[in-house]
Amino acid sequence: MSLVVVGSVAFDSVATPFGERERMLGGSATHFALAASFFTQVSVVGVVGDDFTDEHATVLTRRGIRIDDLEHVEGGTTFFWRGRYDFDLNTAHTLDTQLNVFADFQPRLSDASKAAGTLFLGNIQPGLQAAVRSEYANGGPDGRADPGLVGLDSMNLWIDTQRDALLDVVATVDALLLNDAEVRALTREPNTVRAARRLRDLGPRFVVVKRGEYGAALFGEDGFVGMPGYPLETVVDPTGAGDSFAGGFFGYLAGHGGGDLAEGVLRRAMAVGSVMASFNVEGFGTERVQALTESDIRQRFDDFKSMMSVESLHLASALRTDL
Amino acid sequence: MSLVVVGSVAFDSVATPFGERERMLGGSATHFALAASFFTQVSVVGVVGDDFTDEHATVLTRRGIRIDDLEHVEGGTTFFWRGRYDFDLNTAHTLDTQLNVFADFQPRLSDASKAAGTLFLGNIQPGLQAAVRSEYANGGPDGRADPGLVGLDSMNLWIDTQRDALLDVVATVDALLLNDAEVRALTREPNTVRAARRLRDLGPRFVVVKRGEYGAALFGEDGFVGMPGYPLETVVDPTGAGDSFAGGFFGYLAGHGGGDLAEGVLRRAMAVGSVMASFNVEGFGTERVQALTESDIRQRFDDFKSMMSVESLHLASALRTDL
Repeated sequence: MSLVVVGSVAFDSVATPFGERERMLGGSATHFALAASFFTQVSVVGVVGDDFTDEHATVLTRRGIRIDDLEHVEGGTTFFWRGRYDFDLNTAHTLDTQLNVFADFQPRLSDASKAAGTLFLGNIQPGLQAAVRSEYANGGPDGRADPGLVGLDSMNLWIDTQRDALLDVVATVDALLLNDAEVRALTREPNTVRAARRLRDLGPRFVVVKRGEYGAALFGEDGFVGMPGYPLETVVDPTGAGDSFAGGFFGYLAGHGGGDLAEGVLRRAMAVGSVMASFNVEGFGTERVQALTESDIRQRFDDFKSMMSVESLHLASALRTDL
Repeated sequence: MSLVVVGSVAFDSVATPFGERERMLGGSATHFALAASFFTQVSVVGVVGDDFTDEHATVLTRRGIRIDDLEHVEGGTTFFWRGRYDFDLNTAHTLDTQLNVFADFQPRLSDASKAAGTLFLGNIQPGLQAAVRSEYANGGPDGRADPGLVGLDSMNLWIDTQRDALLDVVATVDALLLNDAEVRALTREPNTVRAARRLRDLGPRFVVVKRGEYGAALFGEDGFVGMPGYPLETVVDPTGAGDSFAGGFFGYLAGHGGGDLAEGVLRRAMAVGSVMASFNVEGFGTERVQALTESDIRQRFDDFKSMMSVESLHLASALRTDL
């Protein structure tokens, strides 16, 4: 199934202990779409200004990503973020945020996007997410009765300032992807297992808790799926790691087709998300992901899978029987 | 192979949001030995005072744990710790520490302990760990030429105050078990993968990084083994979780016998450690672990194993081929 993602397209200036880059193409929709593009047909809904050139468009279109719904505001300037990461690379320090054309963004789905089989509501204002969700639910030109799979990401800003609106839109999606601090903040429940259950009680069929270098956990109808992070010696730039995880995860679900959410599919999607996030952080901005090959992905997936495999425990021989 | 653990035997008074208990039997050697006792013959090397009664001894001996090397100081009082955990249960706040007989503890290995196939140096002063290590290396009455498997745990106090002594003893062990903050502090390297490699360069064949609710990672000769934490809705008392992990992990390695450290064995040992830590935190002090049955352990291990299994990715069908 094809996949539509709505979110930010941005320019990021980032400094880490490993170097710095000025005005790299970034934003949640960009990182998401690039990661997902290896697994399904992706279309980006977003907004850019005059500083978004053909060169930037090519980064997306070269990966087969559709940008028909990427609105270009004449005379406008694209969303800009400047940040730095210190020694431990765990915390992004925001030095500057300029919303620019993003401030008045009113996402619109083309008929093709309304007809897509899956939708991902990237991290934008909950009210805009709800509007897109509603437009999508009303279906494409063929009046789709059964809306496809819908996922959602958010951030602490919206949890803190627009909690009720966020909870309203959370109730309308199938999959919720948040990091663990966000899950705790949204539910005001420190235990992740209980927090995930509360969120599932609101509507989502499954909740994915992103844990950065510690991996990710999925809480769904069939229980729990947990994975460590793929271990990396060199993390160059963590910007977009969560979006790359979401893109790999949701892109795999969309690409696998048929709305099949059997547990085995969800597990593989979790592993794909982890693998795509691990590639993302190995380079600045999109540079590593945009240059990946199928072989790179396959090889790391196989590595990752083997890291997690556990044979059955022969407890009969292991447990002491002389007690 | 039998397993000797040297460490603290203590009384703990603990308050958590779920209740409080006064003077429960605790300490690193106690939690370790109980967890390990399901997998091998364990002997505890430690020190207690007059307040350690037959009732406390029975908690250990009922699980087949040998206490011949548990020194009793006449007129002395056992090590005491009082702490509390707040809402999120992640941080232990120490309210009182009374070393008592532990202050002058000089661990001594009996001939039987010197002959044990495996030794775990629990979290005590690095100098004492080194002394025990040396006594063990000199072998039992049969003058064992090839010392058995040796593991070591430590804590930030020793990293901060006796770093060189700690690094000296780290160089003499096969397995190092620390939490991730300790690994970073000891190596002054924020990247866990690099930090683990540096520690392995000092001597240990493998390094296990404990990550609390996020699971654990092992860095060894054959690469990386990573596991999430077993997901729990109810965490009652985290005291001793790391020691229970270490006991399950090392106990399984010892019990499996023959010094076989094939990757599959290490993986299963990691899962066993995670399972034993998960039981530990479900009750106050030792109450949950001391009441476990083989069936409880087997069932949770199987649950945990299935949570982590990932089938092969059929990338040929998943990856888009029309790019």
